[in-house]
Amino acid sequence: MGLNVDLNGELCACAKGPRNLITDVPGVRVGHVTLDGDSSLGPLHTGVTAIVPPGDCFDRKLPAAAYVSNGFGKSMGLVQVDELGSLETPILMTNTLSCGACFEALVRYSLAAHGEIGVSTGTVNPVVMECNDGPINTIRALAVTPQHGLDAIDAAADAFDEGDVGAGAGMTCFGLKGGIGSSSRVLSFDGRNYTVGVLALTNFGSRDCLRIDGRPVGRELAAADAAGHANAVAYDDGNGRADGRVDDHANDRDKGSIVAVIATDLPADSRQLRRMAKRVTVGITRCGGYIGNGSGEIVVAFSTAARIPHWAGETHTGATLPMIDTAPRLSDNAMDDCFRAVAAASEEAIVSSLAHARSVVGRDGRTTWSLRDATARAGITLNL
Amino acid sequence: MGLNVDLNGELCACAKGPRNLITDVPGVRVGHVTLDGDSSLGPLHTGVTAIVPPGDCFDRKLPAAAYVSNGFGKSMGLVQVDELGSLETPILMTNTLSCGACFEALVRYSLAAHGEIGVSTGTVNPVVMECNDGPINTIRALAVTPQHGLDAIDAAADAFDEGDVGAGAGMTCFGLKGGIGSSSRVLSFDGRNYTVGVLALTNFGSRDCLRIDGRPVGRELAAADAAGHANAVAYDDGNGRADGRVDDHANDRDKGSIVAVIATDLPADSRQLRRMAKRVTVGITRCGGYIGNGSGEIVVAFSTAARIPHWAGETHTGATLPMIDTAPRLSDNAMDDCFRAVAAASEEAIVSSLAHARSVVGRDGRTTWSLRDATARAGITLNL
Amino acid sequence: MGLNVDLNGELCACAKGPRNLITDVPGVRVGHVTLDGDSSLGPLHTGVTAIVPPGDCFDRKLPAAAYVSNGFGKSMGLVQVDELGSLETPILMTNTLSCGACFEALVRYSLAAHGEIGVSTGTVNPVVMECNDGPINTIRALAVTPQHGLDAIDAAADAFDEGDVGAGAGMTCFGLKGGIGSSSRVLSFDGRNYTVGVLALTNFGSRDCLRIDGRPVGRELAAADAAGHANAVAYDDGNGRADGRVDDHANDRDKGSIVAVIATDLPADSRQLRRMAKRVTVGITRCGGYIGNGSGEIVVAFSTAARIPHWAGETHTGATLPMIDTAPRLSDNAMDDCFRAVAAASEEAIVSSLAHARSVVGRDGRTTWSLRDATARAGITLNL
Amino acid sequence: MGLNVDLNGELCACAKGPRNLITDVPGVRVGHVTLDGDSSLGPLHTGVTAIVPPGDCFDRKLPAAAYVSNGFGKSMGLVQVDELGSLETPILMTNTLSCGACFEALVRYSLAAHGEIGVSTGTVNPVVMECNDGPINTIRALAVTPQHGLDAIDAAADAFDEGDVGAGAGMTCFGLKGGIGSSSRVLSFDGRNYTVGVLALTNFGSRDCLRIDGRPVGRELAAADAAGHANAVAYDDGNGRADGRVDDHANDRDKGSIVAVIATDLPADSRQLRRMAKRVTVGITRCGGYIGNGSGEIVVAFSTAARIPHWAGETHTGATLPMIDTAPRLSDNAMDDCFRAVAAASEEAIVSSLAHARSVVGRDGRTTWSLRDATARAGITLNL
Repeated sequence: MGLNVDLNGELCACAKGPRNLITDVPGVRVGHVTLDGDSSLGPLHTGVTAIVPPGDCFDRKLPAAAYVSNGFGKSMGLVQVDELGSLETPILMTNTLSCGACFEALVRYSLAAHGEIGVSTGTVNPVVMECNDGPINTIRALAVTPQHGLDAIDAAADAFDEGDVGAGAGMTCFGLKGGIGSSSRVLSFDGRNYTVGVLALTNFGSRDCLRIDGRPVGRELAAADAAGHANAVAYDDGNGRADGRVDDHANDRDKGSIVAVIATDLPADSRQLRRMAKRVTVGITRCGGYIGNGSGEIVVAFSTAARIPHWAGETHTGATLPMIDTAPRLSDNAMDDCFRAVAAASEEAIVSSLAHARSVVGRDGRTTWSLRDATARAGITLNL
Repeated sequence: MGLNVDLNGELCACAKGPRNLITDVPGVRVGHVTLDGDSSLGPLHTGVTAIVPPGDCFDRKLPAAAYVSNGFGKSMGLVQVDELGSLETPILMTNTLSCGACFEALVRYSLAAHGEIGVSTGTVNPVVMECNDGPINTIRALAVTPQHGLDAIDAAADAFDEGDVGAGAGMTCFGLKGGIGSSSRVLSFDGRNYTVGVLALTNFGSRDCLRIDGRPVGRELAAADAAGHANAVAYDDGNGRADGRVDDHANDRDKGSIVAVIATDLPADSRQLRRMAKRVTVGITRCGGYIGNGSGEIVVAFSTAARIPHWAGETHTGATLPMIDTAPRLSDNAMDDCFRAVAAASEEAIVSSLAHARSVVGRDGRTTWSLRDATARAGITLNL
Repeated sequence: MGLNVDLNGELCACAKGPRNLITDVPGVRVGHVTLDGDSSLGPLHTGVTAIVPPGDCFDRKLPAAAYVSNGFGKSMGLVQVDELGSLETPILMTNTLSCGACFEALVRYSLAAHGEIGVSTGTVNPVVMECNDGPINTIRALAVTPQHGLDAIDAAADAFDEGDVGAGAGMTCFGLKGGIGSSSRVLSFDGRNYTVGVLALTNFGSRDCLRIDGRPVGRELAAADAAGHANAVAYDDGNGRADGRVDDHANDRDKGSIVAVIATDLPADSRQLRRMAKRVTVGITRCGGYIGNGSGEIVVAFSTAARIPHWAGETHTGATLPMIDTAPRLSDNAMDDCFRAVAAASEEAIVSSLAHARSVVGRDGRTTWSLRDATARAGITLNL
Repeated sequence: MGLNVDLNGELCACAKGPRNLITDVPGVRVGHVTLDGDSSLGPLHTGVTAIVPPGDCFDRKLPAAAYVSNGFGKSMGLVQVDELGSLETPILMTNTLSCGACFEALVRYSLAAHGEIGVSTGTVNPVVMECNDGPINTIRALAVTPQHGLDAIDAAADAFDEGDVGAGAGMTCFGLKGGIGSSSRVLSFDGRNYTVGVLALTNFGSRDCLRIDGRPVGRELAAADAAGHANAVAYDDGNGRADGRVDDHANDRDKGSIVAVIATDLPADSRQLRRMAKRVTVGITRCGGYIGNGSGEIVVAFSTAARIPHWAGETHTGATLPMIDTAPRLSDNAMDDCFRAVAAASEEAIVSSLAHARSVVGRDGRTTWSLRDATARAGITLNL
C-alpha cells in the first residue's frame, strides 16, 4: 500500500508497483498472525509476519543475501545465506524472544513438505528476523508458538495490512507506533519491467530525529510538546484503555531495531543482492535513523529469478543432473537504478509503517501514539 | 581428558592443563544431556552439551568472537557476538533441528536470572551451535526440548565425558563415531600462566582423509577394507542391535560439520579471540578435513578476563557508572603462542572425540564404528 | 572550519570543537600539496592531503579500523588495519591512479624514521585513500610523485584549508565542485571532554539528489535550470577560463566516491572505531548520497588514546617488555553519542567541502560550478 | 611443474594438468623478472612475478574473489575485487615495499591499452600481492621499478620457472629457501574437463613445523642439527659467498607470509571463487603452517569462463548493450571436488616452491639453505 505521495523523487524516478507492496513481485505473499490479548504476565501486542516466496524454496532455492548494518540483533539463518547465497524457507519475523518458536515453525514446515530432510538429504536453514517489542508487549510471556508461525505462512496472500499487525503489533518507531510497512518500485532493463519490493519491520529511532521527506517532523513534535500541545486532540483507542498520560514513550532513547526484506524478480545474484540490501540503510537514515548502537539493523534480500536447484550431480534417487547450467545474469552497471529503487522503497516502507499504525496502550499502561494521532495532537499537518 | 600422547609437538611445546579439558580454564564448566531412547519416528541418539562460563554472563559479559570457517550451518547468536564482541549466555550445542529449543532454553535461563530483561533493559542473545546428527539420530523427531537445554546447564561441572555424549551422541566424524572432544594448553606470559581450552563437536570428514599426527589412518583403513578385513573383530553394542553389516557409513561422502568453543583466561579482546578462533581450522585440516562444502565449521571464543559490564553510564536504577574504565590488554605479539596452542588443542580435541566415542547402531540399523573398533577390526595399532 | 550554522541539530546536540576541524583532536595535523598547473597531457587539478597523527605511529601504533561502505575503490592498507586493528603511518589521500606514488611516499617516510624496518623488524603498512578526479584533472598524467606525498606530510599543521585543495583539487560532488571538508564534535564522558573529528574527500553524488539539512537544493537547482536561469550570474574564475557553457557537469551520472578519516582521543578500540566509521554513511545519505555503484566509500578511523607498542615480549635489542599491560576501555553504551557525533560531523564535513570549494574549469574546458556560484546563478539563497 | 610424486592422494584423486602448473588453465601465462645484483645499500634478491589472464581483462573482466586468511599483508586491490567480484588487470607479485611500483606498472599497462580510462570511463583496479623478502633481500633499496612490473608481464609464457625466481628470489619458507611454486588439477563435470591451477609465493613457516605428506621433515632436520650434522654436505653457491655458517635462518621465528593465486576455467562466480580461495589454507596447514600472526596469507582466485563485460547499458560510444545476458552457472554441489583440488594443488605448490629453490646467501651474508641442500646435509632422503 505504501503512501500515495512521493518521497524523495530525486532518489528514484521509477513508478511504484500496482499494490505498492512487496507482493508486487510476482508470487511473493505476506501473512500475519497478530496476538492482541492477555497473558498471565500481562497484555500481549505481538505476532508473526511471514514473507513467502513463490514455489518450493527448498527444491528450487532463491538467490539471496543478508546484510547486517548493525548486529545488535538475533536474526537466524544469516550465516548460511551468506555462505551459499541462497534461501530455502519462507522468512518469519517476530519478537526477539520468540525466534526459537519461529525457527521450529520453519523446521516443521520444511519437514512436512520434504520427507527426505534428515533422511536422504541434509537439514534446512530457517530464516527468522526479529525486533524487540518489549516496551509495548509483555515479551517475557513468550506467547508466540510454532503454530503461530505456521499460521502466518498459511495466511500469506497478495494483499496484506501494514502498521501494527503481525510482528509489528508491538513495535515502536521514532517514539511513535511502528510496525510493518511496505513499498515497491518498477524498473525497466532491456525493454522488460522488473519489480523491487521492500517490507520493513520498524522499531527504531528517536522521535526528535524523525524526518519525512526531509521535513524535521520530530523537531516539530518536540517544539509542540514544549509549547504545551495547544492543538492536542483527545485520544481514544476505542477500548477505553487510553489513560490520559501523553506521549509517554516520545522521549525514550533509541534502543530499537529495524529488519527488512527485499524481494525482486531481477536475476541478481547473492553478491548483488547483498549490495542492494545495504541500501536499505539509505532509507533508514533519510528518515532520521543513525544506525543506533542498540539497533539490530538487518536485511535479507532474495530474487525469484534464476532459482538454484537443490539437486545437482548425483541425486538421492540415483539420477544424475547437470552440475553446470545456464542462467540469466544482471550487469552491475544496473546497480545504480536498483540501489535508488531500494532506497526509495525503503524510505517509503518506513514512513508507511508509521502512517498505517494506530496508537496503542502498552503493557505498562502507557500510550504509544501513532504518527497520525501525534501530529494531529500537535497541530502538525502531514501530507501522507 | 584429551589424549595421553603428544600430537604435533612441533606446533606447540606448551604443557597441557591438569584435566586436559576446556574446564581447565578456571570457572568454565561443561554439562551433557544425552537422549538415547526411542521416539515414535525411530531411535534417538542426540542431546545437548552446555558450555557454561563462570559467573553472571549477562551482568558481566565476556569478551567473545565468532569465526565462520564455512557457513553451511545454523548456529545462532553470532551476529551480535560479532558486533558487540561479547557473550552474555552459556553456549548450548545440539542437533541442527533442535536449535530453536535450545534458543528457548537460554531465553528462559536468562529471564529466570534477570527480571529486568524485557522490562527495564533489552533482551538477551542466546548462542546455540549445532551439527546434523541425521545419519545416526532420528533428527525428524525433534526430540530435544527447552528443558533438556536447561538440564544440560544444570549438569555442568569441571569433569565431563567426551565421545558419544550430549550433543555428540549421534555425530559422525571421518566416517567413524565422533562427538565431543576437548583439550587444553597452558601458556605463560610475563611470568604468569594462562590456559587456552578447546571443546569440539565433531561431525565432519571423509574416512579416507583421516590423519592422526600425520599418519594416514584413513588410507590404512581403506586398504584394510580392500584386503577383506583379515583382522576384523566382532562388534557387539551390548543390545544385540549390530546387524553384521560392516562399516556401512565408512564411505559416505563428507556432508558434516564441526563446531567448537575456545575458552581462555587471557585478556584477549574480541578481535584477538576471532583470530584465535580461526586457528581451529589448523587442527581440523591436520586431521584431514578440507573445510567441506556441506560443513558448518563455526567457532566461538570467549575470555573470562576483563569482563564487560552490562551497565555503564546511566543505569535502570538511576545510578551512574563510569563509561570509561581500565582493563588488561594483550599484545598481538603474543598471538603466535596463542595460535599454536589453539591449533594443537583443536587437533587433540578432534582426535579425542574419536578416541572416546563408542560404536553405535544408528536409526537405520547401520553401524557407525568407533575409531578403536574400526582400527582393531582392521588390525591397525594406534598409540592413543 | 566546517560551517557556522547547525545542520541536523536533532542528530547531535554536542558542541563543535574550537576549529571545527579534525585537528581539534589534540596532535592531529593536516597538510596539503595542490597541483594546479599543466602537464604534457593537459591541465592538472590534483594533489595530496596528509592526515598526520601525533607522535611516532610506528613505535606506538594507533588503534584503528577501516569500513568499506562500497568497495569500488583502491584504498591501500585496509587489510592490515582490519586484522591488527592498528595504524602505523600517516594517511595520504590522492587521486586514484597516484596511490602507488603515495604508497612509496609512506614507505620512504617510514624507512627514514626507522632504520630497523626491513633489517631487524618487519615492514610497514602504508594507508592511502583515493577518489577519481578524472572528470576535472588530467589523471592520466600521473602527476603526483612520492615527493608530493612527503611534502604534504611536511606541510601538516593544525590549521588547514578546505574545498578545492590538496587531494580535493579536482573532485566533483553532487555535480558541483567538491574536495576537502572537515568538522568536529566534543563529547563528554565521566566528566571529561573528548573530540571526534572527521575529514572527508568528497567526489560523489548526483546533483538532483543534493539535500542540505533536508532541503532539496538539488531539485531546486534542477528547477532553476529548467526555468532558464532567470537569475543566473556571470561566472569568472579570474583567469578568463570560463567558456560560457553552463553547468556542464551538473547532470553527469554519479560515478564518484567519498573517502573519510575519523580521528578521536576517545579510548575506542578497533571494533568500536569500525562501528563509528560506518556512521559516516549517515552523513553521506543525509546529503543525498545513496552509496552509488561506482562509489568507493571508505572510512578509516583511529584513536590517539591507548596506543599500541610495536615491541612487546622480546625486542630487537634483546630487552623484554610486557606482553600484557593495562589500557583505558570505552563502554559500548557510549556508542550512541559517538555515532551521533560522527554522523553530524560527517554531514557537516561534506557540506563544508562544497561550501569552501571554488568553481573550476576542468581538463576538457568545461566548468564545474561551486555550490556558491551555482546557487547564486540560480537565485537560491543558502544560509551557510 | 610441481612434483612428480603424489602428496595427499586422499584429498584429491584428480589427475594433474599436463604442465602441472597454473598455466594449464588455457590462456593463463606467468612471467618473472628477477633482480639478483647489488644496490648501494646491499645485495638484491628480489623481483616481480606476473600472472596474466587471457585476453583483455579490462573490457571483459574475470569473475574473481579475494580471501584474507591473515591480514598482516599489504596486497592491493582486494577491496574492489570483493565488491564487484571481478578482476580487470594482470596480478603482480613482488616484495612488500615495492607494491607501489607494481601498482604504477599496472596503471601504465592499463592506460596504454585503454585510452578511454580517465577520459570517457573510470579508472582501473590494479591487483598487487606481496611478501616480505627483507631477511634475504635488501628490501630498503626499493629496487623494483614500474618497468620491472611491465617486463614481468611481457615475459609471461605458458612455461615458467619455480623456486627462487621473480618475486620468489628472496623468500624464506619453513626456514628454508622458498619462492614460487605451482601445481594444477583436472576436474570433470558433465563430461567435460576443467582445470584448477594454483601459484603460490611462499615465505612462511617455522622450520620445525615443516611436514611433507604428513612426514615431520622439520622435526627430522632439527634432530639432525642436534646430532651435529654427521652427514652435512658442503655448500657452495657458485659465487664463493658461502661463509661456512650453517642454517643461520633455520630457527628464525615465523614472521612470514604466503600469497597465492587460483585460476580456473570453471564457470565459478565470485562467491564460489572466494570459497575456493579459502581452501588454500588447507594446503598451508598440511605443510605445517598455522596461519601465523605475522603472516599475510592472502589468495586471489579468478575464472576465465563467463567473463563480465565492462560495458552494459549505455556505452561511451552511445551504443546500448544488454543489461541482462546469460552465462554458465556452476552448482555448489560441485564445490567439494573443487575444494579438494585446491587443497591438493596448494599443498603441492608449496612443496614445489621448496623443491625448486636453490640455497642463497642473503644480504647479511647468512645462508638460507634449500630443502634439497638442507636434507642432503642432514642425511634425510626425500622422495620428491
